[in-house]
Formats: sequence, structure tokens, C-alpha cells
Amino acid sequence: MSDLSITRLDSQQDDFAAELDRLLAWESVSDGKVNQIVDEILGRVKAEGDAAVVEYTNRFDRLQVESMAELEMSQERLHNALDNLPAEQRQALETAAERVRGYHERQKGESWQYSEADGTMLGQKVTPMDRVGLYVPGGKASYPSSVLMNAMPAKVAGVAEIIMVVPTPDGEVNELVLAAAALAGVDRVFCVGGAQAVAALAYGTETVPKVDKIVGPGNIFVATAKRAVFGAVGIDMIAGPSEILVVCDGKTDPDWIAMDLFSQAEHDEDAQSILVSPDADFISAVEASINKLLPTMERKSIIDVSLRERAALIKVKDMDEAMEVTNRIAPEHLELSVEDPESLVPKVRHAGAIFMGRYTAEALGDYCAGPNHVLPTSGTARFSSPLGVYDFQKRSSLIMFSAEGASEMGKVASVLARGESLTAHARSAEYRIKKD
Amino acid sequence: MSDLSITRLDSQQDDFAAELDRLLAWESVSDGKVNQIVDEILGRVKAEGDAAVVEYTNRFDRLQVESMAELEMSQERLHNALDNLPAEQRQALETAAERVRGYHERQKGESWQYSEADGTMLGQKVTPMDRVGLYVPGGKASYPSSVLMNAMPAKVAGVAEIIMVVPTPDGEVNELVLAAAALAGVDRVFCVGGAQAVAALAYGTETVPKVDKIVGPGNIFVATAKRAVFGAVGIDMIAGPSEILVVCDGKTDPDWIAMDLFSQAEHDEDAQSILVSPDADFISAVEASINKLLPTMERKSIIDVSLRERAALIKVKDMDEAMEVTNRIAPEHLELSVEDPESLVPKVRHAGAIFMGRYTAEALGDYCAGPNHVLPTSGTARFSSPLGVYDFQKRSSLIMFSAEGASEMGKVASVLARGESLTAHARSAEYRIKKD
Repeated sequence: MSDLSITRLDSQQDDFAAELDRLLAWESVSDGKVNQIVDEILGRVKAEGDAAVVEYTNRFDRLQVESMAELEMSQERLHNALDNLPAEQRQALETAAERVRGYHERQKGESWQYSEADGTMLGQKVTPMDRVGLYVPGGKASYPSSVLMNAMPAKVAGVAEIIMVVPTPDGEVNELVLAAAALAGVDRVFCVGGAQAVAALAYGTETVPKVDKIVGPGNIFVATAKRAVFGAVGIDMIAGPSEILVVCDGKTDPDWIAMDLFSQAEHDEDAQSILVSPDADFISAVEASINKLLPTMERKSIIDVSLRERAALIKVKDMDEAMEVTNRIAPEHLELSVEDPESLVPKVRHAGAIFMGRYTAEALGDYCAGPNHVLPTSGTARFSSPLGVYDFQKRSSLIMFSAEGASEMGKVASVLARGESLTAHARSAEYRIKKD
Repeated sequence: MSDLSITRLDSQQDDFAAELDRLLAWESVSDGKVNQIVDEILGRVKAEGDAAVVEYTNRFDRLQVESMAELEMSQERLHNALDNLPAEQRQALETAAERVRGYHERQKGESWQYSEADGTMLGQKVTPMDRVGLYVPGGKASYPSSVLMNAMPAKVAGVAEIIMVVPTPDGEVNELVLAAAALAGVDRVFCVGGAQAVAALAYGTETVPKVDKIVGPGNIFVATAKRAVFGAVGIDMIAGPSEILVVCDGKTDPDWIAMDLFSQAEHDEDAQSILVSPDADFISAVEASINKLLPTMERKSIIDVSLRERAALIKVKDMDEAMEVTNRIAPEHLELSVEDPESLVPKVRHAGAIFMGRYTAEALGDYCAGPNHVLPTSGTARFSSPLGVYDFQKRSSLIMFSAEGASEMGKVASVLARGESLTAHARSAEYRIKKD
């Protein structure tokens, strides 16, 4: 195998900003054809319910079922999957679940209120959603860890019912996924996928209950369907390909860094792995490690494409510049493989998760560190957050005016409402002004 | 004027659930034509920048400007608007701004971290967005209170730059809106609107800086454009028509309740006002007040259509049933016009804002109570929250493993990664396991 050619950039080159932009450019386009197919599926499931879901599932997943009931998996079946796991896997899954629960408990929002001098009370009431839907992809992208990461925050938030959908093309079932669903406390599981599963969750059918929010990754049909039902139900972010940015001072074992880059690249050909370092020799050493280790990797063909097409090795002047590049990228995963990561963290404005120090491999965060592995991709860390308990809670404002407070504020509201020509607003407020 | 015919429902009628569903049904449809126009505008602004924005603005707002520079409003101009306000309006606006700031300060999220026994640290870092865009409609829906409500949470969150866009059709400027922008600390104002303004904020042009998130209400072109750019930037919820649900025990002055219902209905013909009470005589009394007061209202023609087409007076068995109806509706505004509202609040699972007691007119919340008036509409309170400081902050997970912690968790991650056939993940974790 000849040496991999990976893009190398230097922050001192004239066209660095433009080249970096080009490297990062990513657009997931739902073309007209996809939109049309999804619109038809959404429309038919909305109108025909179970019958349409069954028909699409038989067609796309090559099944021969006659009713939605056949597509529901029993709690007994889920718990069998958990009970039948090899001890080592079950132990690992339980450790992960416990750590994820512990971290997420700290994200729980609490209601608060306060009183003003005249007895007026203001506050914010926090409540969980009633019911959420969890999309789990079928086939090779079906990860038990993702079931935990999506279901646990909802559980911790206090969501009463979690409905999972997972396609089983040709009847193929992933036992680990079922085990994770049992462990996470998923309430019902339907073996459906694609836009038809999103539609069933968003609109409800005779059998599938309508949910308040849909989370979880999926292919372009699932993403397009989620975007289309947004508003009727809540959705999480629409994920792009996974990416990692490793910032290294040049003193971590280059084999470790190469493997950390591989761990993103092996996800899929579109995944992006970037190394930033002020040490040119170290960059070359990592490149040598990449070429040495790649032939030994099980998923080398995926890694090969991903690194050739989307990776970059970036030489910067110093760590301050490394932080500038970091904030420009706003990476999903940021690995600070340096001696004193705590000194760099205050300079990071945008990142999904920050993995600090040489021991903190990003892969640990994917499974069992505790924080969520569902993170904002493609630079969306500029405005969004890891999936969390806050995604399954919502807030209601509380306002209770005393007679005195209503009278005083009625005067203010009256002036402002009349300034906006909303005189019913003004008169409603004025009724509460005390007559002298 | 003959008496208004308002829908009356009784929870005891056989078809109550179906009739309630029919009453609440609302779908904002972006038809194919709108989508096509918006797509073209987005594409041209993305490709041509300022030139396209200027061209569309001249066309749609009937202006004759030659450059984007002419469409920017100076800080001096904003501050002149504030300085020239009548004293009473300025005082009212300042009181409102101060109360809104005070409430929102309590929403600010703070970073946290904790350590485990082996020295591993986990945490969550909270940071503001760098730059946000605020859409303000032109014409009659241009409200200074909305400028405060959208800009202040961003300011409190610590957003460094707030860019406001507001169309000025035929050159018409709303001085109160400019004054509110000055008071709220908006950094730059461009006199552009529609899909072209959303595109400029989402993609950036030579003159308009690209933002991280776009908030604020707009017409169907603005809503469609926001939906289309979602993902490239963050957006707030896409708002439906405003609605109020008044729950009354029958002991509030019926004129007050009628006026509270009017204060929603006057927004626009699609606005929805609903009264729920266990007291049939009181419902009739409110209806009489409606018919008595309507002829005196400045916006009676809007109120008339809104009440005829979308309002309802609902008789329930008791207050428990009133709370069931409330949770089914998940109203944007919930007024609990009862003796002891605090006893009902625990039963409210879904509502944007809860106005407690006879004195707490919803109109007070629109202007100066403190909580935000941008609230989830059309039942979306089931899964979303009032606009808040949390909408302008984002979180990054922090993970720093000790050597000991990485070794222990490396074993767990290795098992789970191999279960998912992600061997680069496994080997990356295994490098950090201590050799005995």
C-alpha cells in the first residue's frame, strides 16, 4: 500500500483561511427526488396510519407482516436480549449506563421563583415532556451506545414514555441494541425505520402513539423527514458526518494520535479527522504512524477514503493560533492532547466536547465517560449543545401579580400597548389599575 | 351589530374531544410557490451577496438605494430615536427593559465540574454565542416590545454582537422600534426584510456579518427561509398565531375576562382566544360582556373575525377537568383567573406562560412583567420553552481522565467498541490501559 496523501496546511500560507474553509465545507443536500419521496410517505402515513407504515415497511425492509402488532417488540424480548448478553458485555454496558446517568443527573433543570417587595411572584416551572421518540438506525450504523446516549437523558428528565423505532431489514435484529433499550428503560419498540417511522412518531397511528419530540440519527430520508415534521414535534439537530480535531503539543505518542484520528475516520468515508500542532516534526511522525498502522486496521478501506478526502494535518505558529483555528472549526470532538489542557480550555469558545490531556481518548467519551456522545457536528457547536437532559425538559414562565403590582405595572403596560396601537391590551391592563 | 356567534363546547358532549381537536387544528403551510420564491432568494443572496440583497430590497420594499451601506442605520440614528421619545414612553420602555433584564439574569446557565475519586474530572462549560441575528417585522406587526424581548436575553447571555434586520417598506421607519433597539443594546441595524434578510444573516454578505442564530417572528416568507437555513445557523421556533386560554372559576369580573380574550384576538384574525369554566352562567355573562364591549374596540373588525372563527367558550365539569383541557391544548398563554392559582399550577404540564390570579392580565406579561413574551404557540409548549437566555448559550462537555481512570474506562470502552465492530475506537482506548 503506498503512503496516504493527507492534506497538509500551514497557518502561514497565504491562502490558509480559504483552504481551511474549503476543507470544512459540508452540505447535506436533500435533493428534489428525496423530498418528493419523503413528502409522499409523510402524507400517506398521516392519512392512512398503520396500513401505510406496514406497507412501506414490507416494501423497504423486505418483510411480510400483516399488522403493526407484528412489528412491535415485547418487553420480554428486550429483557431476554439483555439477559443473554455475555457477562463482559453486560457488565460494560451497565457501567456505561451508570456513568451516563450520573453525569446527566447534574444537568437536570429545577423550577425556581422569587417574590418582589409588593408581593408579586415571578418564576420558571420546569417539566419533562410526556413522550419522546428515539430513532435508531438499522444495519451497520446501529449502535447500542447510541441507544443509551439518546434514551438516558430522557429518562433522567422524567419523560414518562420513550418509544423506540429501529428498522429490521430482512428481519435482522441487533441483540445489543435491544439489550441497551432494556437497560435504558425504553418503554416500547417498533421495528420500523425510514421516513415512515418518523411519520408514525410525529403524527401517531392506531398503534404507534404520537410523541412530542423525535431524537436520534438516521440516513438522508430520516433527516429529511425530521426536518419536515419539525414544528409539529420537536427534533434534535440534524447530524452531519462525525469529526475530531486533535490539538497536540507534539509530546504525545504519535501512534496514540494516529489511532485517535482513525477512530473518527472509521465511522464513514465522510468523517473528518484534523490534527493541529505547532510542531512540524511531530506532524510528520504522526503521518508515519498513520502509514504504519493503517494496514493493520479492520476498517482500513473506510479510514483510507476518509483520510484522503477529508483529513488535514495543520501546522500552526503556537498554541494561541491553535485555539483560533479551533474556534473557527467549532469541532464536534476536540482533543487537547497537551501537558496542561486546563490552561487552554478558557480559550475554547466553540466545541461539542473537550477531551483534556493525553489519556483522554475521544473513544472513552463515545462509550463510558459519562457526557453524551450526541454532539453538534459541522461547526454547529457555534450555536448548539450536546444532547442533554435539557432537551427533554421545557419551561413555563410563572407570573402572579399582587393587586399593588398589577396596578403599577398596568400603567407601564398601558403606555407601551397604546404605543403599539394594541388598545385591548391597554384596556385589559387598565382594568387592574387601582382607582384613587 | 348583531351578537357574535362564538363556538360553545361542553366537555360532556359526546364529540367533545373531536370538536376540540377541530378547533385547535392549525397548519401553516408553505406552499410550493412560496418555497420556490424563497429558494431562489436564498440561492441568489448566497451567491451574489450585497448586490442581491439590494436588488430584492429595492423591488419588495419599493426603495431606490445603490448599496448596502445606505441600508445600514447608524447608532447615532438609533440613539436619536430613543432621545426623542416622549418622556412617558421612554420611562415605560426603560421600566420594561429593566424588569426583563432582571428576570432573565436568573436564567443564566453557569459552567460546572466535578472530580471522581481517581482524579478524573467531568464538567460542562457554558459559553455565549458570538453573534446573533434578530428579525423584526415591518409595518403594523413591528413591535418595540418584541425588540426588547428578543434582544435582552441575548445581551444577558453575553452575546458579543446583535445584528437586527427590519424592513422599511416605502422608507417607513418605526421610531419606537429604533428606540427599543438602542435601549436593548443592538449593535447594528440593517433596513432589510423578508427571505433576503434571513439569507444575509445566515450566509453573510460583504456588509452583513454571518450570524450563529436567527430569532424573531416574520411572515410566511421569513418563516420558510428560517426553516430552510436551519442547520447552517440556529433558529428559534417558527411561531404560529398567538393564543390565550383563560381558566376562570366564575368569580372574576366578566368584563375583565372579555377584555383579556380581546387582547389576544386583536393581534390578528387567526389568533385564538378560549375560555374554560365550570360555571355556565359565568360563560354567558362573559359572552354578554363581549357583545357589550366589542363595539367600543378600536380593532373590532379583527377581533370580530378572530372570535367568530377561532374562539371557544368551554364548559367543564370542574377544575380538574379544566386542567385536563389545558394540558390537551398546551396553550401559549394560560390565565388562571381563580381564587387560589397556586393550587392549580402543579397540575399544569404544558403551557408557555402561566398568568396567575385575577390581577395578572396576560397583557402585563406582554410588556413588563419580566418573563419573555416570545412563547411556544400551537401546542408546541408540549416540547418547547419561552425564548430565554438558554437560547443564546451553548454547552461543551468537559472530560479529563486521570491515568488511572483512563485505564479502567479503557477496558469498558474496548469491550463496547468491539461489540460495535469499531476497532480503531477500541485500540485508541486500549493504548491508555496500563500495562501490568
